[in-house]
Amino acid sequence: MGKISKETVARPLILVTNDDGISAHGIRFLVDVMQELGAIVVVAPNSPQSGMGHAITIGNTLRLDETDIFGSKVRAFECSGTPVDCVKLAKCIVLEGKKPDLVVSGVNHGSNSSISVLYSGTMSAAIEAAIEGIPSIGFSLCDYSPNADFSHAKEHIKQLAFQVLKSGLPAGVTLNVNIPAKSKTKIRGIKICRQAKAKWQELFEERKDPHGRRYFWMKGSFINQDKVEDTDEWALQNNYIAVVPVMFDLTAYYAIPTISAEWEMKLS
Amino acid sequence: MGKISKETVARPLILVTNDDGISAHGIRFLVDVMQELGAIVVVAPNSPQSGMGHAITIGNTLRLDETDIFGSKVRAFECSGTPVDCVKLAKCIVLEGKKPDLVVSGVNHGSNSSISVLYSGTMSAAIEAAIEGIPSIGFSLCDYSPNADFSHAKEHIKQLAFQVLKSGLPAGVTLNVNIPAKSKTKIRGIKICRQAKAKWQELFEERKDPHGRRYFWMKGSFINQDKVEDTDEWALQNNYIAVVPVMFDLTAYYAIPTISAEWEMKLS
Repeated sequence: MGKISKETVARPLILVTNDDGISAHGIRFLVDVMQELGAIVVVAPNSPQSGMGHAITIGNTLRLDETDIFGSKVRAFECSGTPVDCVKLAKCIVLEGKKPDLVVSGVNHGSNSSISVLYSGTMSAAIEAAIEGIPSIGFSLCDYSPNADFSHAKEHIKQLAFQVLKSGLPAGVTLNVNIPAKSKTKIRGIKICRQAKAKWQELFEERKDPHGRRYFWMKGSFINQDKVEDTDEWALQNNYIAVVPVMFDLTAYYAIPTISAEWEMKLS
Repeated sequence: MGKISKETVARPLILVTNDDGISAHGIRFLVDVMQELGAIVVVAPNSPQSGMGHAITIGNTLRLDETDIFGSKVRAFECSGTPVDCVKLAKCIVLEGKKPDLVVSGVNHGSNSSISVLYSGTMSAAIEAAIEGIPSIGFSLCDYSPNADFSHAKEHIKQLAFQVLKSGLPAGVTLNVNIPAKSKTKIRGIKICRQAKAKWQELFEERKDPHGRRYFWMKGSFINQDKVEDTDEWALQNNYIAVVPVMFDLTAYYAIPTISAEWEMKLS
């Protein structure tokens, strides 16, 4: 398979985005780290977009406004749309069609491991970059607090981004990087993993509005059905950084022969 | 791999949803067809949710209101959320935890073939059902018109849904079914395909609001980079119904050995 190789990168151009919104601590941290590796452009949502998955804005208008939120030296834009909108607007409008050398998304406040990759705006921004053939990484910290401490992740994030800038990634692949929350124990290293078989068990809390009409809040608990050692969940529980190579070709190739054999004759 | 088998289905329970909204012609058509196969429950968005991908509503409240839009004999609910929210609310609240025998989503007004599977709320509803272990199908007609003619698709849709009710689907798999728009030529049959390598080339149209501030509309044209005969795009162009088995495990397994070999040593 092809490689998006960046063997010699002088001063790479790095696009930074996220889903928690441009004012989140996680993106500020990521901007600081990426400035040590290249020239930065930020295009991020102007409001929280957690759980937006691969949503795009097609039935509504989009705003894109320059901001000095990261100081006068960082070119930054806030966007009214989703994380995927941000990547598209960055490419087409801000960079006028020029491809950045790397897209990084995050650092998300909260895990995006396992099945959460599907719901995550952070990861969808990284996937959108991969669709465009741009090497990309989504970073998430397993700590949902708005004031989470990202400091222990700094060198690892820098190393991973440097590695992707240097060696590229297989075509059609992005990385889902989840980092254990800060604790007294040092991170044990990095594991390349598969997505654990897990799901969210949602529970809806029913309430009544002041007019007596019901409404719901979605809550959920994460159910890990997969305790095997090659999963992202195992890695995180054992204090490793979990790196899952993620693809956007959703074809279940293994199912094609069975379904073809059973169905095509009957249905043609 | 396991089978979600439904060998003997007396009067199956079928959940119907979509992303164009509960008042779209496509879902009305699907409700009519599914009534010939089983008992129906509808939970669908109360507004258009095209392009919402796998978004869920976590930072806001959700409404779920019963409606007689399909007549007094069809139990139906409209929801303020996304297609994935609809599946979750259907399972937890409307069906009180009981799993339907089949979830069908659509019929979408417009193609969801190839890379569009990622952006499609129609398909995300079907994927969400698959995560829950419920056999599911997303149906889309390659005609964006709100007044599209679905009639030529009826027997095919019925046959596909019947086949899934009868034989189940491999675990972790849903079907992305795209149907050629009605034309003078009869549909040639059904092809089990892979997702074509294609993408949307977006183009943003910049406008000024009445206050002189700029905003954008997203437009796009579909670029098919993959002309091979085993793809959904080829099938559709040759007047076949394209059926892609779709999975929610996004792990790029083929990339794990390469990345592990190159990275783990250096990064641990």
